[in-house]
Amino acid sequence: MLSRAEEIYVRIRQHIARHRDLRNQAIGALLGQLFEESLNFLRGHRSVDLISQVAGKRYFAFQNGTKLSRAVNADLYLDSADGWSPLLTAISRQDFSSLPAHNINRVIYSAAISFCALIDLTRRADQKTPGTFFEYLIGHLFAARLGLNPTKRLPVLNLDMNTTLPTDFIFDLGPGRAKFHLPIKTSTRERVIQVWAHQRVLDGVYGTGRFLGTPVILAETKTDFETKKVVEICLPDQWLIYQMHIAQLKRVYYLDVPVPYARLTGTFPRLYVKAFGDFFHEVDTLIE
Amino acid sequence: MLSRAEEIYVRIRQHIARHRDLRNQAIGALLGQLFEESLNFLRGHRSVDLISQVAGKRYFAFQNGTKLSRAVNADLYLDSADGWSPLLTAISRQDFSSLPAHNINRVIYSAAISFCALIDLTRRADQKTPGTFFEYLIGHLFAARLGLNPTKRLPVLNLDMNTTLPTDFIFDLGPGRAKFHLPIKTSTRERVIQVWAHQRVLDGVYGTGRFLGTPVILAETKTDFETKKVVEICLPDQWLIYQMHIAQLKRVYYLDVPVPYARLTGTFPRLYVKAFGDFFHEVDTLIE
Repeated sequence: MLSRAEEIYVRIRQHIARHRDLRNQAIGALLGQLFEESLNFLRGHRSVDLISQVAGKRYFAFQNGTKLSRAVNADLYLDSADGWSPLLTAISRQDFSSLPAHNINRVIYSAAISFCALIDLTRRADQKTPGTFFEYLIGHLFAARLGLNPTKRLPVLNLDMNTTLPTDFIFDLGPGRAKFHLPIKTSTRERVIQVWAHQRVLDGVYGTGRFLGTPVILAETKTDFETKKVVEICLPDQWLIYQMHIAQLKRVYYLDVPVPYARLTGTFPRLYVKAFGDFFHEVDTLIE
Repeated sequence: MLSRAEEIYVRIRQHIARHRDLRNQAIGALLGQLFEESLNFLRGHRSVDLISQVAGKRYFAFQNGTKLSRAVNADLYLDSADGWSPLLTAISRQDFSSLPAHNINRVIYSAAISFCALIDLTRRADQKTPGTFFEYLIGHLFAARLGLNPTKRLPVLNLDMNTTLPTDFIFDLGPGRAKFHLPIKTSTRERVIQVWAHQRVLDGVYGTGRFLGTPVILAETKTDFETKKVVEICLPDQWLIYQMHIAQLKRVYYLDVPVPYARLTGTFPRLYVKAFGDFFHEVDTLIE
């Protein structure tokens, strides 16, 4: 039997499949209900502290019998969905003066991690549902903030070639303005090179600088369920090599920002890794 | 209990871990025994014809109770390991005059697919063992043909950066000569862009043309185990875009060459997709 949260998730999926309108306010409302119901579900379960190997961060996990959820950052997690509705209001008014970036980030982190944790506890090795859900959540917030819907295919016209390129979400602000290239992942590990490679293809096909690459990632934690130790898998040296030799990303946004990546902001080549909450405040400066 | 083939596989793994000498003739001999024992195992199992949706190719699968192996190309599969020893002899003598490329390809295809099929029948959703085994098999043959062992890390020296780059197999023929960049995959699907991205990094860090990218891939078949239909997942238009905008691969070798990719040889930009058997004959011309 599906939990109430899972029922709401099915409705979100159906709504998106039927209307192809990710920025629709109805999606925002359903995501809020999903957040609420996920918290209700998790309140009925024990949580266990994990042994954090990540300097300055504390993690715990929810438990259901022998099942353990992914790691939850104790300093980011909110056991209340009260912040969701003010966030939607601020987005619809495009006024974030009373919502600091850090608060926005905690609300979105909690909405994301709570349903992912629920799926970890109720299903067996289901990576797909959390991934698709996270794409809906971030895709909706990005679309609502920009006030337009994304596309997932781009035409390619190149002499004897006439085809379309499948992409991550693309937000096109219109002629003469920036376009966003938005890969969305719950974690990247060694697959992250794909993000730079897709950016390179966009730069090559359409011209460098036309697409702003701004991937959004949930976290890079990895939990050993035997020892209950949490680590962050980070490869900052490789990221710099990708940023130098494949393409330039404009931002990398995280909900739970890994410290080794946040430090890259001070090195060469510049690679700005920030909390996703910052996006809502700074997006207008990115597209200037 | 492990099958005899799996016992031999464990010995191969231990040999490689202990001696770090992939080109060692002992590995070639063990791979031959593994091939033989995999065929013995499979002879004890029924095979069922699959419904091939791939023009000009016939496929079947081995069956073990409710388990079905991956698709096996009926026109490439040899139910005999007799060709293995002549192949090793030809490699050690560097004389392929009596071994046509097509014959070499069939022997290696059969050695590869037989152990992969065995693992499909004996384990549950184990993708890692076939992947690692295939890397050993191709890595050994490539190393034996070139007469040198590969490395998997490269140093990066770049002003304020001093680190190493993890890579697929790299074969370094020495100062002033070519180096091979050899990704090895049982199939690629949407992950293939990584191969071009890694090539781009090598071109950027060490100079364009110093590394010859020559990935080796088993097949691109996908079987629907309900309907027993086999398709090939191919994205030739995207491959051309990668070859045009990310980096240039020298060759893409397959054991079971997908027809849509073989056709790319005649288009622009040039992308030579060939049977891996051809490698043994043409490698000397690649490094000239």
